[in-house]
Amino acid sequence: MRKNETYRVGLIGYGSWATAIAKVLTENDFRIYWWFRKEEDIAFIQQHHHHPRYLPAIHFNIHKLKLTTRLHDVVEKNDWIVIAVPSAFAEPLLEQIPASAWQNKAVVSGIKGILPGTNQLLNDYLATKAQFPAEQYFAITGPCHAEEVASEKLSYITISGRDIERAQRIASRFRTAYLKTMVNDDLWGAQYAATLKNIYAIGAGIAHGLGYGDNFLAVYVANCAHEMDAFNKALCEQQQHLYRSRNAFASAYLGDLLVTCYSQYSRNRTLGTMIGKGYSVKSAQLELGMVAEGYYASKCIHELNQHYQFPIPIAEQIYQILWEHQLPEKAISQMAQTFI
Amino acid sequence: MRKNETYRVGLIGYGSWATAIAKVLTENDFRIYWWFRKEEDIAFIQQHHHHPRYLPAIHFNIHKLKLTTRLHDVVEKNDWIVIAVPSAFAEPLLEQIPASAWQNKAVVSGIKGILPGTNQLLNDYLATKAQFPAEQYFAITGPCHAEEVASEKLSYITISGRDIERAQRIASRFRTAYLKTMVNDDLWGAQYAATLKNIYAIGAGIAHGLGYGDNFLAVYVANCAHEMDAFNKALCEQQQHLYRSRNAFASAYLGDLLVTCYSQYSRNRTLGTMIGKGYSVKSAQLELGMVAEGYYASKCIHELNQHYQFPIPIAEQIYQILWEHQLPEKAISQMAQTFI
Repeated sequence: MRKNETYRVGLIGYGSWATAIAKVLTENDFRIYWWFRKEEDIAFIQQHHHHPRYLPAIHFNIHKLKLTTRLHDVVEKNDWIVIAVPSAFAEPLLEQIPASAWQNKAVVSGIKGILPGTNQLLNDYLATKAQFPAEQYFAITGPCHAEEVASEKLSYITISGRDIERAQRIASRFRTAYLKTMVNDDLWGAQYAATLKNIYAIGAGIAHGLGYGDNFLAVYVANCAHEMDAFNKALCEQQQHLYRSRNAFASAYLGDLLVTCYSQYSRNRTLGTMIGKGYSVKSAQLELGMVAEGYYASKCIHELNQHYQFPIPIAEQIYQILWEHQLPEKAISQMAQTFI
Repeated sequence: MRKNETYRVGLIGYGSWATAIAKVLTENDFRIYWWFRKEEDIAFIQQHHHHPRYLPAIHFNIHKLKLTTRLHDVVEKNDWIVIAVPSAFAEPLLEQIPASAWQNKAVVSGIKGILPGTNQLLNDYLATKAQFPAEQYFAITGPCHAEEVASEKLSYITISGRDIERAQRIASRFRTAYLKTMVNDDLWGAQYAATLKNIYAIGAGIAHGLGYGDNFLAVYVANCAHEMDAFNKALCEQQQHLYRSRNAFASAYLGDLLVTCYSQYSRNRTLGTMIGKGYSVKSAQLELGMVAEGYYASKCIHELNQHYQFPIPIAEQIYQILWEHQLPEKAISQMAQTFI
C-alpha cells in the first residue's frame, strides 16, 4: 500500500513540535502538505532541507514536503489535518478557514492548551464553528519534548479519541522505533491534563527559582498530580464527558506532568525559574523568546473555573503570580498550606 | 513544660538521616541519647560539635547530646526511640537488645526498607521478637533528603501510625519552620512505599545511565507510581492491614518516589546511573561508598512477592539486573513493554 497516496496529511504549524511531527510522518512515508506563515521559511527549507529555527538537525526529504502559505489549501486538499500551533495562535488562524472546509476531515491536534478567545478546547471550538463531530477529532499528548524526538530518544505519545479504533489507526501513523504510541478514549481529560501540566510546570520553575529544594519540588509536583486529577474528574463530570480509559498514573497524565515539571527542555519551567529569580513576568517572556503555553493556560483555567469554582489552589496561585502581580514567595507559601 | 526532661529520646543510627533527625530534635529542645558504633566518632563530636563524616555543617549544642556506644542503654533509659539505620544493618543491631527492653517504649522508625534477614518491616520484626504492639510504632517517611534538612530547605515528612492522635504528638516533636509534618494511619503501606521507591530510583538511574532521555524517564517514573500503588494495595489487602488515609498522590507516596527518582542527592539513583553507564553492580557499590537501600530492597521485595506473585514487572526487572546478571538494556526494554 502506498500510504503517501492513500492518505494525504496537512500540517498546520511551524514550531518545534510541528517540525518533530513532520519528521515522524515523513519517515513513515507520508507526504506532508505543510503550512508556513512566511514564504522565506519555505524558501529556506527548500534550499537547506531543514527548518530555519527549530530542530535544525532534522533533515527532510524535500520530495515528501509540499510547503505552502495557503492555509485554506492545507485543509481543503487533505484527508487528515494535524494542527500543532501554540494555543494562543490557533483561533486567529482557524478563523480564516471556512466552516465547510472541515467537512469529512479528521483532525489530529497537537495543541497543548485551551483557545484563549473562547476558553474552549480545539474540538469544542470546531464543534461550535463548523459542527465538527468529536468522533473525527484526535488529540496527541506527551510526555514528548520535541527535542528528544528530533534526537530519536525513546518517547511516548498517547492518541485520545472517541473512536478508539480510528485512534489506533492514527497512532500507527506516528509509531516509529523511537516513538511508542498508546491510545485512550479520554478526549477531553487528556487535553485538559495537557493544558494544566504547563501551568504546574511554571510553578515548579518559580519554586526552583526562589531557591526551594528537591524535597519541596517533589511534594509540589505530587500535589499538582493530585489537583490535576481531581479537577479533571470534576470538570469532565460537570461537562458530561464520558471516558473509560483514564488512569491518572499513565503517561498522558502523570508522565506528561513529570517531564514538563522536571525537564530542562520545558520552556514553561524555564519561564517560572526566571520569575522565581526575580524577573518580571513580562521581561521573562521577552527574554525567553518562545511561547510558554502555561502562561495563557493559567488565565483560561482561571476563567473557566469561575463558573465551576472547583478548589484548585495551586493553579489559582500561579494565575495570581502571572496575571495579578501576586508575589511569588507569598503565592507558594499559600498553596503549600493545602499540601497533602 | 521542660520537654527535654518530660520525654527522653534515644537515637540509634549515625548516618546522614540520623544526623538530620538529631538536628531537628535538638532544635526542638530535646536532649538526645545517641548511639554510635565507634568511640572515636563520639570523641570527634565532643571535640568538634559536628559529625565526622555526615552533614558536617550541622553544629550541635553538645549539652543536648548524650553520646554512647552502649546500645542497650539507649533503649532502656529512654521513653521513645528513633531508629535510623540502613535496613540491612538493623537486624544484627537489634538482636543485641533483649526483648524485655522494648516494653512500654514508643519506636519511631526512619528505616527506609525491609529487614533482609526475615523480609519483615521493622514493626513486624519487633512484633515477632518482642511482642511489640503496632500501636506504639510510628514510621517517618519523606520526601526528605537529609542534605536539604541540614541546609534548612523547606521539607516534609509524614508520620504514619495506627494511633493517629499519638502520631500527631510525635509529628509535633519533629516540626520546625523548615520541616512540615503530616500524619496518616497507613503504617504498612507508607513503609512499603518507602521501600519500593528506592528500587525504582535505581531503575531511573539505570535508564539515565543508558542514555534514555527525559521523555522516557517521565513515562518510567509514572509507571513506577502506578506499580507501587497497585502492589501496595494488593499487599496490604492480602496481609489484612487496614488504613483509611492513603492517597497515592500524597507526599509520602508519590512525593517520596519523585524526589528519590529525580534528585541529585539520591544515592539509589546514583548507583543506578553507574550501572547504566557500564559499572558492574559490585564495583558501582564500592565506588559509591554508601549504602543504597534499593539494592537490598529489590531482593526483599522479590522474595516477598514469591509468595504473592503480584505483577511488578518494573521492580522485578531491576531485581534481575542487580541480583541475576540481567543486562540493563534488555531489562529496561522488557519492562517498557508493560508501560501505560
